[in-house]
Amino acid sequence: MAKRNLNLNIIPVEEALEKYFSALEGFLLPKFEKVPAEESLNRITSSAVYARLNSPHYNAAAMDGIAVRAAATTGALETNPLTLEEGKDFIPVNTGDPVHAPYDAVIMAEDLIQDNDRQNVIITKSASIMQHIRPIGENIAAGEMIISGKHKIRPIDIGVIISGGVTHIDVYTKPKIAIFPTGSELIDISRLQDEEIPKEGAIIESNSRMYEAQVKQAGAEGTRFAPVPDDFEKLKNAISKAAQNFDMVLINAGSSAGTEDFTVQVLREIGEVIIHGVAVRPGKPVILAIVNNKPVIGTPGYPVSAWLSFVTFAAPVLSVLTGSALKPAQKIEAVLTEQIVSSPKHREYVRVKLENENGKLTASPLARHSGAAMSLLKADGFCVIDLGCELLEAGEIVQIELIQEV
Amino acid sequence: MAKRNLNLNIIPVEEALEKYFSALEGFLLPKFEKVPAEESLNRITSSAVYARLNSPHYNAAAMDGIAVRAAATTGALETNPLTLEEGKDFIPVNTGDPVHAPYDAVIMAEDLIQDNDRQNVIITKSASIMQHIRPIGENIAAGEMIISGKHKIRPIDIGVIISGGVTHIDVYTKPKIAIFPTGSELIDISRLQDEEIPKEGAIIESNSRMYEAQVKQAGAEGTRFAPVPDDFEKLKNAISKAAQNFDMVLINAGSSAGTEDFTVQVLREIGEVIIHGVAVRPGKPVILAIVNNKPVIGTPGYPVSAWLSFVTFAAPVLSVLTGSALKPAQKIEAVLTEQIVSSPKHREYVRVKLENENGKLTASPLARHSGAAMSLLKADGFCVIDLGCELLEAGEIVQIELIQEV
Repeated sequence: MAKRNLNLNIIPVEEALEKYFSALEGFLLPKFEKVPAEESLNRITSSAVYARLNSPHYNAAAMDGIAVRAAATTGALETNPLTLEEGKDFIPVNTGDPVHAPYDAVIMAEDLIQDNDRQNVIITKSASIMQHIRPIGENIAAGEMIISGKHKIRPIDIGVIISGGVTHIDVYTKPKIAIFPTGSELIDISRLQDEEIPKEGAIIESNSRMYEAQVKQAGAEGTRFAPVPDDFEKLKNAISKAAQNFDMVLINAGSSAGTEDFTVQVLREIGEVIIHGVAVRPGKPVILAIVNNKPVIGTPGYPVSAWLSFVTFAAPVLSVLTGSALKPAQKIEAVLTEQIVSSPKHREYVRVKLENENGKLTASPLARHSGAAMSLLKADGFCVIDLGCELLEAGEIVQIELIQEV
Repeated sequence: MAKRNLNLNIIPVEEALEKYFSALEGFLLPKFEKVPAEESLNRITSSAVYARLNSPHYNAAAMDGIAVRAAATTGALETNPLTLEEGKDFIPVNTGDPVHAPYDAVIMAEDLIQDNDRQNVIITKSASIMQHIRPIGENIAAGEMIISGKHKIRPIDIGVIISGGVTHIDVYTKPKIAIFPTGSELIDISRLQDEEIPKEGAIIESNSRMYEAQVKQAGAEGTRFAPVPDDFEKLKNAISKAAQNFDMVLINAGSSAGTEDFTVQVLREIGEVIIHGVAVRPGKPVILAIVNNKPVIGTPGYPVSAWLSFVTFAAPVLSVLTGSALKPAQKIEAVLTEQIVSSPKHREYVRVKLENENGKLTASPLARHSGAAMSLLKADGFCVIDLGCELLEAGEIVQIELIQEV
């Protein structure tokens, strides 16, 4: 039989990440760019945004009505109505109109009585100085910080940035991620006919499509390549080139110890393999490497392993490149409905379905095979069984890490 | 003075929505389209997706190792090692390879001892039937429902849909929304020079840019038009045309009773105004209309009113057109730090900042003017003061509606 790489060094997840990040130190360099404020939705600011202009940038009527001199309205009462003359005592204003000296107050239209003389109005209440006037800078003061750096732009932010007279803002450039499916047995879904049934041994490639979506959700720009066949030179050329042109490379499958699994050998030849194999299930045979100072991550082929490897290893790297904060998984307590036996040598992520039984939240384990992607799709979260733990009993209260909604 | 529309009919939010939706009955017709599975991230399914193929679609090795006849391994023990001959007793397999009769089990590479004869291996444990073989359909069974209708596609869904041999899925077409800023005083940010200071009375238009982003987040496609000046005929032509070509129209500003606020008059002429004015602050002078059987919503110009009107009135309509579920606002209890006096005639949304003071969550009211957009940007949520309520006391425990994160 051909030679196999059986000696995966198995280290805990946190230690693997720590080693990888310290090897990457100085290499994970986010880039920045200017974008028009109106096109900045969901982008991450690379520096704080300060208002350039006051908003409003002049004293503005806050109501439709008339601008008056407050002093000239003194004494107006229900019992002592006062008649004001247009052009002399007041001018009509709409919301947003400038209010200038001598006028220093606005009386709203609802409070006016129309005089028979169309040029006059009657008031029954005096106005106070600056009443219904938005003073300069009421909304935003020039120089004020609108949003901080590392902030993900929301619709309301766009509105305020623009109101503050800022036309462009500095954001993290979306990092470019190369995604390589590998394996001679793979068929591309885009080449599959609607009714076609693949031949035995052929597998419809799906992980790279899932990765495209995960990369996009992480705020990066994925470029997916056609499947690379199991050929050492072809894989080597593809990865070498990608490590020149992209900020990060993801290689799916070919990360375990199969005879055709060239990935780790290729990465050793053209770069440095920092981690090969981590004490986690699903997802053990992950490769964390550096080629041309770029992070290159090889992930296992089973869909659940592929998904979890991305979340565990690729997402933290992407978070540095995109500037976005990694959301820690939300946790919730639930009662385990069945015993779970697990290997103490790995941290295991067991998919669970949550159910509310008479006000009590229960967690039922789903299929555990890393090929059973349907069970990930149906899962609400993971029961995480830590390194060293062999058994969780039915009825035990456990922490469930929720799978984050899109 | 010119004529004003002072008689806004003030009705509660829920009643306004109910009236509007019953007037729209039969008119909010979502459209559907087919998209390639690999391009379906964040789209909403219009019908359930069923697997076309089994995955795997043949019995497949689940491990790298050798395929054997389980029966031929009976009796193998540490104390009774068994030698197997390649081609006769076993064939080498990699993960994913088909396993055929006469072979019915896989022994993983880690459990093999290499014999001196390179064609032979030694085993010290018997194999059970179907051991390390993924049976046909283990991951996905042909005909199985992968996801239901009205489901927002996640990355893992894409992976499973493709693995199930499905090339295209049926989704809601993104509705097309026309967005009109109105007002002769508006300046377009894209025409503002970097250092330019607008003249008095001029306002940098920002709400339509915020709406573009809100519409995008709601899963629809916004088309923003240049500001329409305060001119009855121009506004009428613009809206009439948009009501032909779009699924919904948003008109910002011009919805209150100012002399230049033609919107409601235009909408009465070319369609039906169902609601003008709702008992809510900020956002009172909203217009809910129907033109050419399409929903047309006019919203007030102050940024906080504009934002809130979208969330309250446009979002529910969009939710029908996009097929996406409206997320109810998450609520959290907090202690009010200051008294709030409010008009009993309106429901008021008071922006609050949440703070954790010694383990106790407090809510501090922020600026309440609907022009104070900075306070919305800084707010964590709203203290909602319902119709009929005039006063909340400092120290009272209140429900805060959280502002949803992007």
